[in-house]
Amino acid sequence: MGKHGQYQGAGSSARSAKSIGATAAALIVVPGARHPHNPRMNFCSHCGSDRIALRVPDGDNMPRYTCDACRAIHYQNPKVVVGCLPEWDGQVLLCRRAIEPRHGLWTLPAGFLENGESVVAGARRETDEEAGARVEIGELYTLISLAQIGQVFMMFRARLTDIDFAPGPESLDVRLFREEEIPWEELAFRTVARTLRTYFLDRKQGRFPLRVSVLERKPVHR
Amino acid sequence: MGKHGQYQGAGSSARSAKSIGATAAALIVVPGARHPHNPRMNFCSHCGSDRIALRVPDGDNMPRYTCDACRAIHYQNPKVVVGCLPEWDGQVLLCRRAIEPRHGLWTLPAGFLENGESVVAGARRETDEEAGARVEIGELYTLISLAQIGQVFMMFRARLTDIDFAPGPESLDVRLFREEEIPWEELAFRTVARTLRTYFLDRKQGRFPLRVSVLERKPVHR
Repeated sequence: MGKHGQYQGAGSSARSAKSIGATAAALIVVPGARHPHNPRMNFCSHCGSDRIALRVPDGDNMPRYTCDACRAIHYQNPKVVVGCLPEWDGQVLLCRRAIEPRHGLWTLPAGFLENGESVVAGARRETDEEAGARVEIGELYTLISLAQIGQVFMMFRARLTDIDFAPGPESLDVRLFREEEIPWEELAFRTVARTLRTYFLDRKQGRFPLRVSVLERKPVHR
Repeated sequence: MGKHGQYQGAGSSARSAKSIGATAAALIVVPGARHPHNPRMNFCSHCGSDRIALRVPDGDNMPRYTCDACRAIHYQNPKVVVGCLPEWDGQVLLCRRAIEPRHGLWTLPAGFLENGESVVAGARRETDEEAGARVEIGELYTLISLAQIGQVFMMFRARLTDIDFAPGPESLDVRLFREEEIPWEELAFRTVARTLRTYFLDRKQGRFPLRVSVLERKPVHR
């Protein structure tokens, strides 16, 4: 599902690398599923029956995985990706990905929000995991709906509290970039490119209003 | 799980009412599950095995449902609730709930974001479904993490385009309230109370900055 151009499946980016590997690939790559961003269900996770299918439940208007044996309805909903744009002395911190998708490309620290944490705590954790960096999280800056892959991307502005950072297991490299050094052709995700592009424009104006937008599915070149 | 004080399970509020009814109650009420906001898995939805348990996968740091038969890892993540605060001539639109949880109490129109829609589209859809109302969605106003029940609540300011609204199937009543008429003691959710309280304070200042906050689990009175 790399063609959808964002984090795949569920879980943090650390986990995604493993999920896309040999062991769980069948779960993540689900040809024929109606929602490519959510795993296909072959069996009811409640009762174990294989009498499960995507259909519109009574009183609903969207297809859901429903079980004809125990009548459970299994809802699947978008996931939240949280991260930040860490600033230091006019520079921005980027991480070079050590994992798929987009191995070797540059990104802002971000990953899937976990149960039990706030959006701010999630952004802080991802920055620590991917860049070994400590940040003060500031205002929410971009809120991007990736509707067709079922993700909501939230990027906060942030201030590095020191520059004693180091790549975590998911990163090949972490470094600070001035605007003219940003590797625009080697950014991992369109959400990251949009956030950075808008940021440098807004910085010239000296104000950073929240930018709410939608990112459509990238055209597939055949 | 009504004690957690928010929408339960997954899916839109329309569906929640049905899920909490007889047919799917076993799926929604999951005593013993580690994450009360996500359904317990008894069987692997990929291969049907019952050799499934909550454990921390290699290289991960949080428990996940993992299958010892096919090695699938089933990630569960927070869900997004989107809604709005519809304004008309100094008044605010509220809906009186016709469904559980919080039947008979007042709320702002809101519900679970669906796959395939943007956060703005989701807020507009919920307003149409619950209040039969058309709105122009404005700026994001509150972003509240309900970490312990795995929800992210996003409320936009909005402007009613007309007052030809009417309760949908999930609402007993829909009406406009002036500040002094707000039924503070009969609000359905703390997220709604916080959004309204902040709104009337901010309105006095004539500005509505985005309010990012966390809502802790409500103390249980024993």
